[in-house]
Amino acid sequence: MKPPIILKSGKNQYLINEFNGELHTHKGIINLEELKSKNFGDSIKTHLGVEFKILPFKASDFFKLFKKKATPVMPKDIGVVIAHAGLQPDSLILDAGTGSGVTAAYFAYFNKFGEVITVEKRRDFAKVARENFRTAGLKNIHQIIGDAVEVADGFKKEFDFVFLDMKDDVKMIPKAYEILRYNGFIAVYNPYIEQTRAVYEQMIKTGFRDVEGFEVVKINLEFKRVGTRPFVNIYHTGFIVMGRKI
Amino acid sequence: MKPPIILKSGKNQYLINEFNGELHTHKGIINLEELKSKNFGDSIKTHLGVEFKILPFKASDFFKLFKKKATPVMPKDIGVVIAHAGLQPDSLILDAGTGSGVTAAYFAYFNKFGEVITVEKRRDFAKVARENFRTAGLKNIHQIIGDAVEVADGFKKEFDFVFLDMKDDVKMIPKAYEILRYNGFIAVYNPYIEQTRAVYEQMIKTGFRDVEGFEVVKINLEFKRVGTRPFVNIYHTGFIVMGRKI
Amino acid sequence: MKPPIILKSGKNQYLINEFNGELHTHKGIINLEELKSKNFGDSIKTHLGVEFKILPFKASDFFKLFKKKATPVMPKDIGVVIAHAGLQPDSLILDAGTGSGVTAAYFAYFNKFGEVITVEKRRDFAKVARENFRTAGLKNIHQIIGDAVEVADGFKKEFDFVFLDMKDDVKMIPKAYEILRYNGFIAVYNPYIEQTRAVYEQMIKTGFRDVEGFEVVKINLEFKRVGTRPFVNIYHTGFIVMGRKI
Amino acid sequence: MKPPIILKSGKNQYLINEFNGELHTHKGIINLEELKSKNFGDSIKTHLGVEFKILPFKASDFFKLFKKKATPVMPKDIGVVIAHAGLQPDSLILDAGTGSGVTAAYFAYFNKFGEVITVEKRRDFAKVARENFRTAGLKNIHQIIGDAVEVADGFKKEFDFVFLDMKDDVKMIPKAYEILRYNGFIAVYNPYIEQTRAVYEQMIKTGFRDVEGFEVVKINLEFKRVGTRPFVNIYHTGFIVMGRKI
Repeated sequence: MKPPIILKSGKNQYLINEFNGELHTHKGIINLEELKSKNFGDSIKTHLGVEFKILPFKASDFFKLFKKKATPVMPKDIGVVIAHAGLQPDSLILDAGTGSGVTAAYFAYFNKFGEVITVEKRRDFAKVARENFRTAGLKNIHQIIGDAVEVADGFKKEFDFVFLDMKDDVKMIPKAYEILRYNGFIAVYNPYIEQTRAVYEQMIKTGFRDVEGFEVVKINLEFKRVGTRPFVNIYHTGFIVMGRKI
Repeated sequence: MKPPIILKSGKNQYLINEFNGELHTHKGIINLEELKSKNFGDSIKTHLGVEFKILPFKASDFFKLFKKKATPVMPKDIGVVIAHAGLQPDSLILDAGTGSGVTAAYFAYFNKFGEVITVEKRRDFAKVARENFRTAGLKNIHQIIGDAVEVADGFKKEFDFVFLDMKDDVKMIPKAYEILRYNGFIAVYNPYIEQTRAVYEQMIKTGFRDVEGFEVVKINLEFKRVGTRPFVNIYHTGFIVMGRKI
Repeated sequence: MKPPIILKSGKNQYLINEFNGELHTHKGIINLEELKSKNFGDSIKTHLGVEFKILPFKASDFFKLFKKKATPVMPKDIGVVIAHAGLQPDSLILDAGTGSGVTAAYFAYFNKFGEVITVEKRRDFAKVARENFRTAGLKNIHQIIGDAVEVADGFKKEFDFVFLDMKDDVKMIPKAYEILRYNGFIAVYNPYIEQTRAVYEQMIKTGFRDVEGFEVVKINLEFKRVGTRPFVNIYHTGFIVMGRKI
Repeated sequence: MKPPIILKSGKNQYLINEFNGELHTHKGIINLEELKSKNFGDSIKTHLGVEFKILPFKASDFFKLFKKKATPVMPKDIGVVIAHAGLQPDSLILDAGTGSGVTAAYFAYFNKFGEVITVEKRRDFAKVARENFRTAGLKNIHQIIGDAVEVADGFKKEFDFVFLDMKDDVKMIPKAYEILRYNGFIAVYNPYIEQTRAVYEQMIKTGFRDVEGFEVVKINLEFKRVGTRPFVNIYHTGFIVMGRKI
């Protein structure tokens, strides 16, 4: 059993990245050293005797377990972006608007043999994200604190993919074009339709091709004894505009 | 410029994997050797003088350019499956129901440092898929012709992910459980709701956890001069049921 | 100003059908006689001095103000049924499965120059519905307590429209066919897809034409200062199957 | 058997309002006098011997059989508007933007004991609509050719409901407010989101209450032998903004 792992007791879950030191929960203190002799499915006790179950980690746990400051992009949206961009796992990715780091973490996880550079203006967000990345044990994320629009001027034309979830997304689009390799993709995430249109128009103007805007709706199925019916937890998260540099 | 590349003239597109030999199009013959001295964005002429543009390849071209026998799974569905499973690019994947090979190709593309084993009962489908894989230049796909339910008995418990798009999916689920590693994921794709429910119930019965059924709808935006409005090309493709072995 | 009217104070709303007697609210007692000298937009005070605003009534208030025992059909679903059936306001309508009476009330309201017969097996539901109809001041609803499947045997072939929201809907379909006039419509409401299919098949078998099944989703728009975005309160309510006797 | 009725042969359908004169079809001439001795389900022959089946009329035939110049509002949208407005069948309705007359016809049909005034600027549209109304035998529609914004100045405050499907909808909203009775409703139909927002904001500014914007999606079910699945013919038709004068 290797980190990262999840410790779970009822509704409380913790993402554990190192099997040493102590974890302070409000149900008592856990000696993480003990994890070294445990296996998935085993339990571990706090000093108050409360049991936590040991579970393996999966990517969507980023979404659930990360400390959040901003509203994170959901797995469904990240998945569709990855598929439409045809992202490969040895890419150089720019993630502008780190927020709590969920998106960067997802990209770093898939892009295991590549690198993710994530830029955030707000120090408080960047700090929360840094903790999240450390907990998740992700080594291939590089954090920059600053305005992505300015920071981009220091980058070379070597990015395979640029993801924007930031206020000044329209201003950032021409910069993104500059730093993308031939055949690189951009994806811009936005909750509102007017801003989505502004992004679309800027992409066209900048010279991106195959530009398309869409949203992704996940319709769940409820399988009850009396029958099956659809249900939706969150209908709208954000619109996505994607473009390709060719 | 390295293969694979796309040659495009009007509505006609070809996926080219090797820069030698000839390509016979109905607009004339192209000497593929000439591609060695070309760059993306350049053109190449057939012996009849018709120009084809040279474009880089992207994953969603699998969906458009592959020869198709069966209805392939769409990029949106593959993307959400990848994100929800937290697939990493050095995995061992089983794809049961090769069909035309679109799904296997997608998985092989993302899972660049891993392997995909794809199983198909129908010889005619497998043949088309083999051609598609060769054209796409994918080296990490292994094709097996046979009934996945039987073939699975020969596998070890070493798969990270199993994807089913096949008739006997319900029968295959316990076999999939056997060959999945701890924390491995299964995803089953199905157009019809009754079969989707049967799959869900079999997964629960087999011992899978975090089982959920859903469909993914892509709602596009049309940005016209007079205004913006939603539109949908294909509303329903298939339902997906996912489960996790823990 | 004529009844019915709405009295509203904060979140509390009452539907008032007669301008005499007293209304006991938990904010005090209102003398309804006083309404005779009031107008819409005026206020009226309880004996404790709490103000209630006087508002006109609208049909969707049935949905909000009726006492509810069962989950009522929503206005969107009733509206689409009315439009697809081409219901005219001097029809004879059978509503089987009164529940709390929302659907019957809606039909009675539109069908102002016709009659609605509503049948309910459960005495407790029928009682709540009767109170609701009385409060709403609807004179053209006739309540029958009993099993619709049996009750139908006593009806003549004179109904223009039959609406079913009841457990034994499949059994009721041939009976509905018998009592419908030529060119009459049936609509069956059901939350679950398996039962919806059983209804569809029974309609086809019974001889109904133009049979179609669907659901109606209302996607709201949120107009915020920062932009516009879709949101959905309740995605799925029920499936509707409609058929026509020709 | 009384008019209106439908004559149908293969894909060809005709709406017949009078049982005299001749109907010239491209499969030959039908003597409509003969209909007087026929019943629903019977057939009638052209002078070339081609059979047409006699079917009863339903409201959604307006949508299918009317001659169309503009894109008509669909039954689902009209139904939800009627339900949300709580329209009663003895109302005075203004329909601004007659187009081909589908909406006015629908309203006239439901509002059997009331009147519909429909206004259209374009003479060619109005002419097509007039023919459609005549064919449908609707007596309670009054057509005005002119700019609704100007025409409204001549109306009294006596309308129960105003429906707008016209270019200058924003300009028309304050006029609509003036001519609506207390507790009257307005509904504005628009394909594009930007214009929908402008309508929403103008309604708020004008003093309308309970203002809400939405779209209605009809998701059909396909019941095949192998299973049930959803499908959508037309996803987006238009957005609707509704408001109430209180």
